Amino acid sequence: MQTDTWLKFKALYFKFPEIGLAVDLSQLGVPEDFARKFETPIQHAFRSMQDLEAGAIANPDEHRMVGHYWLRAPELAPNQELRDAITGTLARLRRFTKEVHSGAIHGAAGPFLHALIIGIGGSALGPQFVADALGNPGIDKMNLFFLDNTDPDGMDKVLATLRGQLGQTLAIVISKSGGTKETRNGMLEAARQYKAEGIDFPRHAVAITGAESELDKLATAQGWLERFPMWDWVGGRTSETSAVGLLPAMLQGIDVDQFLGGAAAADRATRQWQLEKNPAALLAVAWHHATAGKGLKDMVVLPYKDRLLLFSRYLQQLIMESLGKEKDLNGKNVSQGISVFGNKGSTDQHAYIQQLRDGIDNFFVTFIQVLKDRATPHFEVEPGVTSGDYLQGFYLGTRQALAEKQRGSISLVVNEISPFSIGMLIGLYERAVGFYASLVNINAYHQPGVEAGKKAATAILQLQEKVIACLALNKGQFQAVEEIAPKVQGQGQEQIIFKICEHLAANPERRVTTNGSGFRLE
Amino acid sequence: MQTDTWLKFKALYFKFPEIGLAVDLSQLGVPEDFARKFETPIQHAFRSMQDLEAGAIANPDEHRMVGHYWLRAPELAPNQELRDAITGTLARLRRFTKEVHSGAIHGAAGPFLHALIIGIGGSALGPQFVADALGNPGIDKMNLFFLDNTDPDGMDKVLATLRGQLGQTLAIVISKSGGTKETRNGMLEAARQYKAEGIDFPRHAVAITGAESELDKLATAQGWLERFPMWDWVGGRTSETSAVGLLPAMLQGIDVDQFLGGAAAADRATRQWQLEKNPAALLAVAWHHATAGKGLKDMVVLPYKDRLLLFSRYLQQLIMESLGKEKDLNGKNVSQGISVFGNKGSTDQHAYIQQLRDGIDNFFVTFIQVLKDRATPHFEVEPGVTSGDYLQGFYLGTRQALAEKQRGSISLVVNEISPFSIGMLIGLYERAVGFYASLVNINAYHQPGVEAGKKAATAILQLQEKVIACLALNKGQFQAVEEIAPKVQGQGQEQIIFKICEHLAANPERRVTTNGSGFRLE
Repeated sequence: MQTDTWLKFKALYFKFPEIGLAVDLSQLGVPEDFARKFETPIQHAFRSMQDLEAGAIANPDEHRMVGHYWLRAPELAPNQELRDAITGTLARLRRFTKEVHSGAIHGAAGPFLHALIIGIGGSALGPQFVADALGNPGIDKMNLFFLDNTDPDGMDKVLATLRGQLGQTLAIVISKSGGTKETRNGMLEAARQYKAEGIDFPRHAVAITGAESELDKLATAQGWLERFPMWDWVGGRTSETSAVGLLPAMLQGIDVDQFLGGAAAADRATRQWQLEKNPAALLAVAWHHATAGKGLKDMVVLPYKDRLLLFSRYLQQLIMESLGKEKDLNGKNVSQGISVFGNKGSTDQHAYIQQLRDGIDNFFVTFIQVLKDRATPHFEVEPGVTSGDYLQGFYLGTRQALAEKQRGSISLVVNEISPFSIGMLIGLYERAVGFYASLVNINAYHQPGVEAGKKAATAILQLQEKVIACLALNKGQFQAVEEIAPKVQGQGQEQIIFKICEHLAANPERRVTTNGSGFRLE
Repeated sequence: MQTDTWLKFKALYFKFPEIGLAVDLSQLGVPEDFARKFETPIQHAFRSMQDLEAGAIANPDEHRMVGHYWLRAPELAPNQELRDAITGTLARLRRFTKEVHSGAIHGAAGPFLHALIIGIGGSALGPQFVADALGNPGIDKMNLFFLDNTDPDGMDKVLATLRGQLGQTLAIVISKSGGTKETRNGMLEAARQYKAEGIDFPRHAVAITGAESELDKLATAQGWLERFPMWDWVGGRTSETSAVGLLPAMLQGIDVDQFLGGAAAADRATRQWQLEKNPAALLAVAWHHATAGKGLKDMVVLPYKDRLLLFSRYLQQLIMESLGKEKDLNGKNVSQGISVFGNKGSTDQHAYIQQLRDGIDNFFVTFIQVLKDRATPHFEVEPGVTSGDYLQGFYLGTRQALAEKQRGSISLVVNEISPFSIGMLIGLYERAVGFYASLVNINAYHQPGVEAGKKAATAILQLQEKVIACLALNKGQFQAVEEIAPKVQGQGQEQIIFKICEHLAANPERRVTTNGSGFRLE
């Protein structure tokens, strides 16, 4: 006998054994005929994706191609030059890694044991996710550390863990533009520490950056160990299968052939022009259903696997930066996007399942289940029951408890955590984001909104320079913010001037003090 | 001359020098007369809080008091027994820590160098946040590790980092009820590893749990090193200033007098019955304004300080579990809550500022700025400019870029990261959550929605037992899910049975295989 729920489950449980994945939409409340409803728009999405992969200028305002798919299938790149660039770089990465592992390339104090990755955004989130997902303490060939911000104390803390070991630490500076200030600052702070320990930074440094960028020129001039390219046809948030992700992973000892193979397999599986046979298209359609195509619900990502803890942080960038757009492709204001958050289950059940089940209904969940429990021998916490059975029980129990309250969920079922499956997940979501962007008619591959904050920051640093000069000019004299403002052409910016002074005054070496109503340079 | 924006900023910039804090509501778009509008409800909130602190049964459905404020001001506890319990436990914690640090209490292989904290939810999020915020590599007296889930592989990974060092590792098992399955499993997996290394687990273990709980009885029976209490008047998500948070912090070498002092100072500052003089009330009112008192916008928490990276994860539980409620105090369906996410700035700018500025307008930001940059000497990345200036520049630039698009933000300005300020932030948010709950008329101190998932999980594990028995009964024979279901009284639960079988089949030691249409036990 087939019960209704079982029939419905089977109708909405899509298996993709060739990539070790199943997509379960049975708990999302999609109508039975959802495939028909999305037929036309998803065909459009398939067509757009085909053009993209063939080298169309998919990023018209930046006039560039979008080619991250070629990174794991160079034969698909639109010309020989690109194919050679990809395969040539991969060969160089392999050679370099081999020489590092063999000790032929080494640090001042011996073979490189640690890698210090200096990058932010797409130059850190992917490497951090992969390192955490696939690392094995005690087995990894090198340990990875990250400087991913311009917080001086944060950098001090990371560098303190490497104290005395910089002579065996390879610094990898990653910036596509080569001008990212956080990364530049991280490089300078790290170089200073190498110098303080009497170690030649350039002989311990590698750059991954665009040709002829500031960073590229510096690395050339200083004779760094190596330089690997970032290309304008690879976006930061889709750069994990380029040198950005591959070099850290290779150094750590991760099998990047498997990793690239997983991404390539996901790409192949998501080139099917039929919704039910295409896991990324299913995801895109499911998101559209869940959020009304307007981002009306948040995506809560709950992998029931510790190694996937950083996946939601990775997806935050991939999804929010790709989909969070003001205008659609016709220039119409649409204010699109989907908010993404989550850590891991069952841990997060103890943090906020209360709200998900009982509280505001403003989300849908993506559960990720991993079928294989562990690599070490079986262990029973009760007769016949393992920790992994509990993990599955909590996942299924939560899925059910949410369904009882009409809170929808998608489940992804992954066979195991491996380089292949991590590559697969990355490829799958890259494609799903592309399809969803087509469904809502936006450009997934630019980020016009990020410049404003950077420009404002630059203006604030210029204002700071003037404020310091103004304090210096009246050394020893307290000046109120209202007095400083006109002298630095800062009328209307008093609050910024105040905050600049307040920050200076909190850091004694800046020699700025306050009497409560004004600030002075000592 | 005072410009309009400067006047507005000063009117909405609230300073609390006694706790090293300022609350900046100038970018949230609150009306000038907001204090008047909230006068009546906030007075009600003040009164409720006063009753709570005096020992009222604020948690009527669980019939218990809510007393986390007494933990840092025992003199305010409503009776001598409670006062003695608090001060007595603190004295015992100090003594125990001193003996561990001196080596008087030690492991099989020598002084304890590491602590393995086994707990989940409120028993992990606070200790993890504080350890990360206040730890100093190379200086800390002990290193902390966490088992905070029932993922077998996740536990293997943590235990692998401690391989060969368990003889100097103190295990701290934390569970208020003493029956949390994830924690029980973590304890069993850890104990197994100690045993495998020939080390006596009970002589390396401490329990923090309710009196007479399962865990308490086990620890007593096995003669663990120590047991510290959790009381029914301290909720898991507000337990960071109880033994739960204090023992890990003390062992790490953090000054918990300062930490408790910060929380106590925040409590004092938030006992002011005047909105503008009460930072927690200001926060609660700001949240109400931003979310229309209905959680209509997500709270994005962006501390511009690496050490505060885990604060948003801590706040996810504190805020979402407290505020995510189906019914109000009158039993009316309200589906309340506020979704919380975020990591740190400027890092997150490179992940999703694109969406925040240009995309769906479904959030408000809480920036946290820390004025003091670093403890080590000053370093300029450009003449006159530090990494910390950049960090501030990015914060102010982003705040401004969002304001230009009418995206509202709150800024908290904190003098420095210290045990005092971390305790202060915890106390501040605990109180803000309590006030907000009063404003929207809900009980912040229970979590009726979390049981459903646990019960469903238990039922699923019971079903699994039957499924395994059914497979054993027909050993060697493939049975389809439809065949198994009636034999295990599982009609209507076929999808769960399928998922149970699929999971068993993915783990070879379970000896279950599939032929694609059915499952059998070998």
